[in-house]
Amino acid sequence: MKKYIGVDVGGTSVKGIIISEDGSALSDSSVAVDKSSPQNIAGCINGLITRLADAAGLRVEDASGIGIGCPGLIDSVNGRVVFAGNLNLRDFPLGEAVSRRFGLQTKITNDANAAALGEARFGAGANYSDSILVTLGTGVGGGIVVDGKLFEGGCSAGAEIGHIVIERGGLPCTCGRRGCFESYCSATALIKRTAEAMRGHRDSLMWKTYTDKTVSGKTAFDYAGTDAAAKEVVDWYIGYLACGLTNIANIFRPQIIMLGGGVSAQGEKLTVPLQKLVNAELFGGTEYAPVKIAVSELGNRAGAFGAAALNIP
Amino acid sequence: MKKYIGVDVGGTSVKGIIISEDGSALSDSSVAVDKSSPQNIAGCINGLITRLADAAGLRVEDASGIGIGCPGLIDSVNGRVVFAGNLNLRDFPLGEAVSRRFGLQTKITNDANAAALGEARFGAGANYSDSILVTLGTGVGGGIVVDGKLFEGGCSAGAEIGHIVIERGGLPCTCGRRGCFESYCSATALIKRTAEAMRGHRDSLMWKTYTDKTVSGKTAFDYAGTDAAAKEVVDWYIGYLACGLTNIANIFRPQIIMLGGGVSAQGEKLTVPLQKLVNAELFGGTEYAPVKIAVSELGNRAGAFGAAALNIP
Repeated sequence: MKKYIGVDVGGTSVKGIIISEDGSALSDSSVAVDKSSPQNIAGCINGLITRLADAAGLRVEDASGIGIGCPGLIDSVNGRVVFAGNLNLRDFPLGEAVSRRFGLQTKITNDANAAALGEARFGAGANYSDSILVTLGTGVGGGIVVDGKLFEGGCSAGAEIGHIVIERGGLPCTCGRRGCFESYCSATALIKRTAEAMRGHRDSLMWKTYTDKTVSGKTAFDYAGTDAAAKEVVDWYIGYLACGLTNIANIFRPQIIMLGGGVSAQGEKLTVPLQKLVNAELFGGTEYAPVKIAVSELGNRAGAFGAAALNIP
Repeated sequence: MKKYIGVDVGGTSVKGIIISEDGSALSDSSVAVDKSSPQNIAGCINGLITRLADAAGLRVEDASGIGIGCPGLIDSVNGRVVFAGNLNLRDFPLGEAVSRRFGLQTKITNDANAAALGEARFGAGANYSDSILVTLGTGVGGGIVVDGKLFEGGCSAGAEIGHIVIERGGLPCTCGRRGCFESYCSATALIKRTAEAMRGHRDSLMWKTYTDKTVSGKTAFDYAGTDAAAKEVVDWYIGYLACGLTNIANIFRPQIIMLGGGVSAQGEKLTVPLQKLVNAELFGGTEYAPVKIAVSELGNRAGAFGAAALNIP
């Protein structure tokens, strides 16, 4: 069976994997990322790839391709990082810097897109041709898979799911706009809202148990059954999340939307009410083209799996 | 040169065209639609096709395919109208009813998608591979062309551009949601807002000249230079329109967004301020993947052109 190498570049570490075309992992490793120069980033990736091959008892050249998921704006056609702020990369041919070392076909995409492809091929989306991953973390990211293939938008600069305004003039977003999906539905936004609710309800269980320092994306969900202020936060969050997911569903009409990122650990506390709300608002109803709301399955390995899958037909 | 037949089914009439593959029209006609039964609708289309061929001095069988744009929810893979309320169609194999008559390959898509493909191939989008048509009429419709091909979403039920919520809890929409792009940016919404502004400013030139019956989508634009209440309406409208267009641009990153429908007659009064506002909010800026805002060119023939283009490779 053919083997594929996948690398997921993050702000602090690079994760890598070698998989068979059926998705079984042959080796799995990671390395701290040296961001002092573009060449050093490429060096970290190349070192990791060599190590992955050794661990799997293969030569790198035995693999059928290398895939890279990288944060930032990626020109996937030319294998180029256009801009990646937290890696200090600007207009760097990362694909070439890796492919030259091993003489293997090397493809690159945005890290959120890679994670979506990973989940689509080997995770919660494995039984569906059309799926969308929405990650609820520091921001709201994600990726779109249409007919089994990544949909990256023109110049591979699209699919910015988190930057759809859902409340014009609303909360400020890191992108400069106001009211983006991300500014309501990131874990960051959830934590901020929870902290505000705690301070505003000093009789709440949340306030008695947590401080501004210990509050997390779990807090409101943990207390929603017993604490009115916590329930309000959860309802607020799920309401906005349903709105953003329905928007995406009305455009792409995927068979499944998969939630990833820290907040997705809430599982059915999210998916059950979300499914109801999305069903109620989906354009034209749910009979002809229903959308399932589910939780992702591969966790933080989705990106490396998806990067490997970039070369799997 | 190969010839293609395109038919655009509307609520009151069916427009048809025969074009060469370069987009030149060989004949052009229309017929009132008889909605009394699905068979009669198919009959109108088939009669029109025969007439188009006669006028072009061709036999229908000399054409390389028939394309149909039809309102409502369309299953384009199976050539089936799933539901079209204003044609009283439900689960009807319209593609087959036409192809059987002539023995020609017959494709069908949603009418808004057909118009988008028409503009993309032969109108304002002819120099671009990735374009989006946004029609500002009774509702906000449109279609998406990616890499020269229609993007219809899963089950061809997506691309519902007008039904992205941009102001959660905002104005009610015909789809049942609140705050949809359509509920702010349709001509209907513009006229309603203008009428409200007139009533609220009885010293305005608009109020002195128009009544609730004569106010149109032009009124506020016509007086925006001299009447503060009119200018407020125009700024309100363009602000929401820019928001909705930026949302779409952040997802699809088309090279061009083309405005169609009645309001698009305002031309540069729309495109100049919109270009500025979209540029200011586009994710990651305009340097790498800019988006041009323009007015569509084919008017109400776009649908028939696009329907014909469904069979052009």
